[in-house]
Amino acid sequence: MPNIILPILFISSFLLSSSDASDFCVADLQAPQGPAAYSCKKSELVTVNDFVFSGLREEGNTSNLIKAAVTSAFSAQFPGVNGLGISVARLDLAVSGVVPMHTHPGGSEIIVVVRGTITAGFLSSANKVYYKALRSGDVMVFPQGLLHFQINAGKTTASAYLSFGSPSPGVQVLDFALFANDLPSNIVQATTFLDGVQVKKLKGVLGGTG
Amino acid sequence: MPNIILPILFISSFLLSSSDASDFCVADLQAPQGPAAYSCKKSELVTVNDFVFSGLREEGNTSNLIKAAVTSAFSAQFPGVNGLGISVARLDLAVSGVVPMHTHPGGSEIIVVVRGTITAGFLSSANKVYYKALRSGDVMVFPQGLLHFQINAGKTTASAYLSFGSPSPGVQVLDFALFANDLPSNIVQATTFLDGVQVKKLKGVLGGTG
Amino acid sequence: MPNIILPILFISSFLLSSSDASDFCVADLQAPQGPAAYSCKKSELVTVNDFVFSGLREEGNTSNLIKAAVTSAFSAQFPGVNGLGISVARLDLAVSGVVPMHTHPGGSEIIVVVRGTITAGFLSSANKVYYKALRSGDVMVFPQGLLHFQINAGKTTASAYLSFGSPSPGVQVLDFALFANDLPSNIVQATTFLDGVQVKKLKGVLGGTG
Amino acid sequence: MPNIILPILFISSFLLSSSDASDFCVADLQAPQGPAAYSCKKSELVTVNDFVFSGLREEGNTSNLIKAAVTSAFSAQFPGVNGLGISVARLDLAVSGVVPMHTHPGGSEIIVVVRGTITAGFLSSANKVYYKALRSGDVMVFPQGLLHFQINAGKTTASAYLSFGSPSPGVQVLDFALFANDLPSNIVQATTFLDGVQVKKLKGVLGGTG
Amino acid sequence: MPNIILPILFISSFLLSSSDASDFCVADLQAPQGPAAYSCKKSELVTVNDFVFSGLREEGNTSNLIKAAVTSAFSAQFPGVNGLGISVARLDLAVSGVVPMHTHPGGSEIIVVVRGTITAGFLSSANKVYYKALRSGDVMVFPQGLLHFQINAGKTTASAYLSFGSPSPGVQVLDFALFANDLPSNIVQATTFLDGVQVKKLKGVLGGTG
Amino acid sequence: MPNIILPILFISSFLLSSSDASDFCVADLQAPQGPAAYSCKKSELVTVNDFVFSGLREEGNTSNLIKAAVTSAFSAQFPGVNGLGISVARLDLAVSGVVPMHTHPGGSEIIVVVRGTITAGFLSSANKVYYKALRSGDVMVFPQGLLHFQINAGKTTASAYLSFGSPSPGVQVLDFALFANDLPSNIVQATTFLDGVQVKKLKGVLGGTG
Repeated sequence: MPNIILPILFISSFLLSSSDASDFCVADLQAPQGPAAYSCKKSELVTVNDFVFSGLREEGNTSNLIKAAVTSAFSAQFPGVNGLGISVARLDLAVSGVVPMHTHPGGSEIIVVVRGTITAGFLSSANKVYYKALRSGDVMVFPQGLLHFQINAGKTTASAYLSFGSPSPGVQVLDFALFANDLPSNIVQATTFLDGVQVKKLKGVLGGTG
Repeated sequence: MPNIILPILFISSFLLSSSDASDFCVADLQAPQGPAAYSCKKSELVTVNDFVFSGLREEGNTSNLIKAAVTSAFSAQFPGVNGLGISVARLDLAVSGVVPMHTHPGGSEIIVVVRGTITAGFLSSANKVYYKALRSGDVMVFPQGLLHFQINAGKTTASAYLSFGSPSPGVQVLDFALFANDLPSNIVQATTFLDGVQVKKLKGVLGGTG
Repeated sequence: MPNIILPILFISSFLLSSSDASDFCVADLQAPQGPAAYSCKKSELVTVNDFVFSGLREEGNTSNLIKAAVTSAFSAQFPGVNGLGISVARLDLAVSGVVPMHTHPGGSEIIVVVRGTITAGFLSSANKVYYKALRSGDVMVFPQGLLHFQINAGKTTASAYLSFGSPSPGVQVLDFALFANDLPSNIVQATTFLDGVQVKKLKGVLGGTG
Repeated sequence: MPNIILPILFISSFLLSSSDASDFCVADLQAPQGPAAYSCKKSELVTVNDFVFSGLREEGNTSNLIKAAVTSAFSAQFPGVNGLGISVARLDLAVSGVVPMHTHPGGSEIIVVVRGTITAGFLSSANKVYYKALRSGDVMVFPQGLLHFQINAGKTTASAYLSFGSPSPGVQVLDFALFANDLPSNIVQATTFLDGVQVKKLKGVLGGTG
Repeated sequence: MPNIILPILFISSFLLSSSDASDFCVADLQAPQGPAAYSCKKSELVTVNDFVFSGLREEGNTSNLIKAAVTSAFSAQFPGVNGLGISVARLDLAVSGVVPMHTHPGGSEIIVVVRGTITAGFLSSANKVYYKALRSGDVMVFPQGLLHFQINAGKTTASAYLSFGSPSPGVQVLDFALFANDLPSNIVQATTFLDGVQVKKLKGVLGGTG
Repeated sequence: MPNIILPILFISSFLLSSSDASDFCVADLQAPQGPAAYSCKKSELVTVNDFVFSGLREEGNTSNLIKAAVTSAFSAQFPGVNGLGISVARLDLAVSGVVPMHTHPGGSEIIVVVRGTITAGFLSSANKVYYKALRSGDVMVFPQGLLHFQINAGKTTASAYLSFGSPSPGVQVLDFALFANDLPSNIVQATTFLDGVQVKKLKGVLGGTG
């Protein structure tokens, strides 16, 4: 049975030239970081737990004013996805809950509704609106970098899983970007056409200054 | 109120230079195809339904011998993801159901278990095994191109959503690749170290010849 | 002088295996389009004029209400950049002119101010503001997908050239996305926290319905 | 002759803004590593020997049971290719030698046969077989991530050079992945449809446990 | 007004999972460097000044023998562009000034002429010449890696801004590569077909040896 | 034996969602072409011969004045590599044969010397020279876009295989670019610092005009 006996020498030449380091790069969150990814944890320290994340098990706390919770498994929370081009998150929306207008500068998103009914949509560069009421099991894609939103339009709690085409897609929430920092009100007004009263009101609510 | 009135001329110069064509590329499955993507459907024909897929609503039919069903929303089924770097699928596993060893040559995968318990794992280039029993809400990542599997290890039906870092990740199921075609048995034997009897048996079962 | 005479046969074997087709891909705007680029014009039809664009010579018409003009040389206007990963545009701002908040989903941008003074800035995912008054010759970079703006803060006309890291970076102008289409007012309100009166006012001004 | 005299000042402004660091990144195997590449050795320490590799000069030792030797010049052995998207290896096959079924998760491969006759092939996602007997000078490409193999089908030693579209393509040898580790036999059986006796036999031969 | 009050808990779950680190990566020029980019400066140390560069304000010193000055804002000079895929430079050409034949191995270039008249051109793989006299406001693209040049063909000083599709495009000036180092003259002769006298003359002028 | 019987229904759901189209894209040289690749031949027409190329079997004809022959297996000659990121070529050098200075704008190259002795080298952006005499079995890498050359420095015929990190790397031969077209002699002179006599001589030899 020559062809089933251990090819020891084959291992030594070919296999040793490869390593897990070409397969994955579990993030070492303390090491130098590049634009696309964290540095890799040494592969001898990697265990299965680096590839498993349990932080999405529980429903997020929606006892807030938007009645929404988004829990992320990006590379900062789930180091196993570093360098692999994907990540996920969990969305929970109480009745009337809303994920306000936002973008992900670094990747496209797919929502999979798993409970309840969610009205979701995005706005295109050509200024068109694409939105629809999604029921459990429905899937919708939001192309990279475009404003989009999710609203619980049903009468029960809704939940969904979100997939991203980046381990670190970023998120820019429109209202926080405009109103929750020290960008001067007159600049906000001039660049959004919003009334001064509206700008000051939302700056007040969201903790912005200037 | 000069700064809130319609900036018509601004639209004509800047906005018209952009278009939805830079945002997305809904697949035209009949047009010429490149290595990474299908050609784009004309954007004036695109509707919200191109970005929504309902084919994952229902549990897949697991009345088969592996007691498993995987329903894909890749670009061939869900043209809206074409060119966007992501796709999803639904996995249903009856009790004892198994997704046999396979790889996705074109992208990494994340599984999100939504019902039941699934034992999932992958094998690395350095020949290590990373596997774990996942319960509902758990997430696991399978790096691109590596052999991996999922087994319903619980006593109830299990379901999961799968995310991929490619709109068309491909799938190579090990047993079908080895035994369900006309690759001569002696080549299978020589390149897998399997016994001839075993090879012929599985070729018989899976419809292979040679 | 053997080594300076025409190596005819060398040309026939090596050079003929290459062609301009590996150098560039001037856009054929009528042919099938992929997610990243247009198809290529046949290289025998390409001339130097495909690589030169004169549409940025003249100051744009800023006789509009935002007192701004942006003239693009993206692949749709300047087919020579198709597939090459870059494009440019020209910005003219009359006194008090404003380029309102917008994003480019597909690429980063560098502004080079060539006349006057422009206050420019962007908002980050972590909700910080980075803005500064730029004088002629100053350069500022706006990372991909983030909200940014430009304002003529001086007392004379200002002009700038914009460079993009994509031949087709897209542009989503915040106000047009929110107010210049048929996205229902109650969705705009719910996802932006803006007052209903403000939403209706801007929808009216910008031609939106719903 | 003004135009042939040393343009000193030109050098100082333009050339100094560039450096070898934009040309190459010889791997520093001890520094932090990212998902795609090693960190770069300081360019002042780089010599021509970083770009030359002599480890493929000699025929590999095929005195093993598969009668095959593969010697790699990946970035871990040949640091000069780090970041450059390519690498090579040398294959030697004694009479009846076999490179067993394997995949490269990270890149496509081209084989160039330089001595003898090699039967090579790959298996596609659609479960087709593409294989052929190659003679000296023949070239065959194996697309990324697909199972492939090489067999010396001739009566003399065979040799080949392998090119990869990655400096670190990885290699997953099917039998080692399945049988040379501690993946429990019942999981192997369930996910491969192999008989228990066959699994235990190969686990025994290849040093696997469980 | 429930929908305009601060959604504190939403911030804590979703926003904290993102950070500026997914938006940009200002170069830390002292930290380990990868093939595509420098490591990132810690985001808490980043200020607006990292994204602004004033080094292009002044006309470069063209009092040299080629009567040309190129001032670069690549990632080594302008760390804010690191990882963002773009950079810029400023070109000044006195009357008769010339940017000699050169390539950028790492990215395509667009020139925007802002003063005077510049004759610019490039040479393709198929050995064609694409060149044209450009006046102020004209734009021309030079595809990646091809030999190109710029000449002030007018009677006044000319200036231009250069955009690159890489934060670190590299620059190889033909004459410096051939004549300003220790590449032996006989190798230069053999590989360029130039006369020995010509080679030695230019080696002398440009400081080359051998 | 429930787990070894044909899982027909599994095939129908999961496998049919994939196809060879996600594995490879054999070039259809007549269909529309994009910047990175040709369109794909329909996968039902693909055979093993699309992945095999025999055009490198024979020694190239070096009966020319540079005593060199390069035979390419780029995507235009070897359609199977289209979209796969790699290609190869064969180099034959008679005694004193030379591959003159050239660049590949689109990819890095590795040379594997298989017969004789070849002196090979490249020039970096920082104007350094990296060259060495390579004997049979030696490997050298030439980073993307940099000038490089190969010379038979031995007393016997030399041969090598060249690997490229692109299916269509392009090739710009310095002398042909400068002297074998209609670029006016005065532009060549001004941009290369070569003497007019030298330029006219080489234009004459290489068939250039102007």
